Amino acid sequence: MVDPRAYEAMAQPIVGIRDPYFLELMSEIQSGLRDVFGTRNENTFVVPAGGSGAMECAIANFVRPGSKFAIFAAGHFADRMTVMAKRQGANVVRLEKPWGEVFVAEEATAFLERERPEVIGFVQAETSTGAYQSGRAIAPAARKLGALVIADCVTSLGAMPVELDAVGIDVAFSCSQKGLSCPAGLSPISVSPKAWEWLEKRPEEPSSWYLDLRLMSKYFEAPHVYHHTPSPPLYYAMHQALAVIEEEGLKARWERHRQASERLITGLVRLGFEPLVKKPEDRIWHMTTVVPPSKVNEAKLRENLLTKYNIEVAGGLGQLTSKILRIGTMGPLATSESVDFLLDSLQASI
Amino acid sequence: MVDPRAYEAMAQPIVGIRDPYFLELMSEIQSGLRDVFGTRNENTFVVPAGGSGAMECAIANFVRPGSKFAIFAAGHFADRMTVMAKRQGANVVRLEKPWGEVFVAEEATAFLERERPEVIGFVQAETSTGAYQSGRAIAPAARKLGALVIADCVTSLGAMPVELDAVGIDVAFSCSQKGLSCPAGLSPISVSPKAWEWLEKRPEEPSSWYLDLRLMSKYFEAPHVYHHTPSPPLYYAMHQALAVIEEEGLKARWERHRQASERLITGLVRLGFEPLVKKPEDRIWHMTTVVPPSKVNEAKLRENLLTKYNIEVAGGLGQLTSKILRIGTMGPLATSESVDFLLDSLQASI
Repeated sequence: MVDPRAYEAMAQPIVGIRDPYFLELMSEIQSGLRDVFGTRNENTFVVPAGGSGAMECAIANFVRPGSKFAIFAAGHFADRMTVMAKRQGANVVRLEKPWGEVFVAEEATAFLERERPEVIGFVQAETSTGAYQSGRAIAPAARKLGALVIADCVTSLGAMPVELDAVGIDVAFSCSQKGLSCPAGLSPISVSPKAWEWLEKRPEEPSSWYLDLRLMSKYFEAPHVYHHTPSPPLYYAMHQALAVIEEEGLKARWERHRQASERLITGLVRLGFEPLVKKPEDRIWHMTTVVPPSKVNEAKLRENLLTKYNIEVAGGLGQLTSKILRIGTMGPLATSESVDFLLDSLQASI
Repeated sequence: MVDPRAYEAMAQPIVGIRDPYFLELMSEIQSGLRDVFGTRNENTFVVPAGGSGAMECAIANFVRPGSKFAIFAAGHFADRMTVMAKRQGANVVRLEKPWGEVFVAEEATAFLERERPEVIGFVQAETSTGAYQSGRAIAPAARKLGALVIADCVTSLGAMPVELDAVGIDVAFSCSQKGLSCPAGLSPISVSPKAWEWLEKRPEEPSSWYLDLRLMSKYFEAPHVYHHTPSPPLYYAMHQALAVIEEEGLKARWERHRQASERLITGLVRLGFEPLVKKPEDRIWHMTTVVPPSKVNEAKLRENLLTKYNIEVAGGLGQLTSKILRIGTMGPLATSESVDFLLDSLQASI
């Protein structure tokens, strides 16, 4: 759900891409993004594309042809990262676990010490499974070996802890339409000083010009050299959404999402649904994945919810297609009232 | 200037990416784009990125590593296409002319017969110079040699003739924020059946996953397989902007732009400005480029117009920096009233 204030913001007049007002707004967006990312990275800005475009931006800039890229794979978006890295000509090695599980420090360390990759990638909040992997079990071991750490924060940003600097993540990307409660189309990215230095020394240019971070960054710093034309309404929406987050307070927002999740899971279990992610601490707070009771037709249930109650619940992706429900309670929806309305509607629909 | 109806459209509620309403709207956008592109190409849809992202999409899909790509270069955006093609590993050959000129059939044919490229690229409306190259002097010769024809229609679409099928253009891309009068961020693309067939047979995958046309197209046709998350407000705006064009009538809209251009040029010449593009038939109708009288400080003039009259006029790009004004009279601005207001403001500012 898009925050009502983000909607309203899009009605603001469109100005030129170097209009002083627009540049000030851009600078405030960058500052707000540093807060939600939990970082002091100067190179924090927005990619003019959706979340998968930001994933490709991270991969195309930091995964060189022939380099060894280690992926922690337990879901659809880790697979997407794999495909993208292979297209960049990387030597991809994967540590795999069943979908819905997260990696622990021992197995991560053993894998990384065995493979000694130049770059590693993991998914902090795997939207396809509902599993949350903070990165604390992975990043320290990777950094110790001198590898750059890339994290997919598409679903975590703005709704639960991301904490790049504390965890030790070098390159993080996200999207606008999940934890930030904006419309899709503009994607945050943040790069550590160490990774930026690596990028400055990279011998060959990335295959993508549009997603070349070195070129892109020149627009975000004075004198704001033209690279692409930004989409003002999407900037206005993100600016307002970040103000909404700042007003509530990031930690209060996280706690609201956590409480809504707890209430939702309790209610779902009571109705006979089984959480896909077993341990509570491994669950994404605002995107809950459950296996419906065996008597329930998942597709029909989702259709009922949409047509009768105007509630859109997602189904599974990839190997979880038709097997699970994915229930988002993000931003304005992470309240007891919304959760109870959803649970009542579910009860009446099964 | 964004059409007021496109602004209003963005306030519509955001729905899911496979919501029947959204899919219907998408299909109407595709149909409207076919009309403005002047094509019956089934594969006509929108790239989830800005105009340069759409350029990269065309290049990354149709310019293979090692293939010979011939570019007609007389401006900044032909140079951008060159850089992108080199990053894809292509063997780029260029026919160059001074910025502001267009290519004639004899020189185009001689160049193509000499080089025998697999793909060719030209810029239909070169925003950096104000020159319009319909493609009629280039495309027939290229097709005769079996080459695919890529055209940058970023600035032409929606405001003056594009006519893919009549000219013989295989792959055309554009943007939303110029002739279509939408906000930036969503970019039309159209691919001929011949080029699509070529794509289906392409032996290696393009380096980009996000801009892979074969993957992207699956979202636009049933069963609408998830590839990227579209940005609903940008779709709503484009849907409405295309309705505005259809109501006015495409040819009437072209004629309105042509008349505004004629009025603007006449007035500018009277004030001592000199058109950069010499021949009237080679000029973009809605983006006029002029050299100011020698006594005029170009940067100061633009600043005056912005601060005193709220009129934004662009300066030159690349080798034309500080040398010309680029004056847009697109969409709602292509009227006698707007042109006269601009001319009066200019006269008072020089």
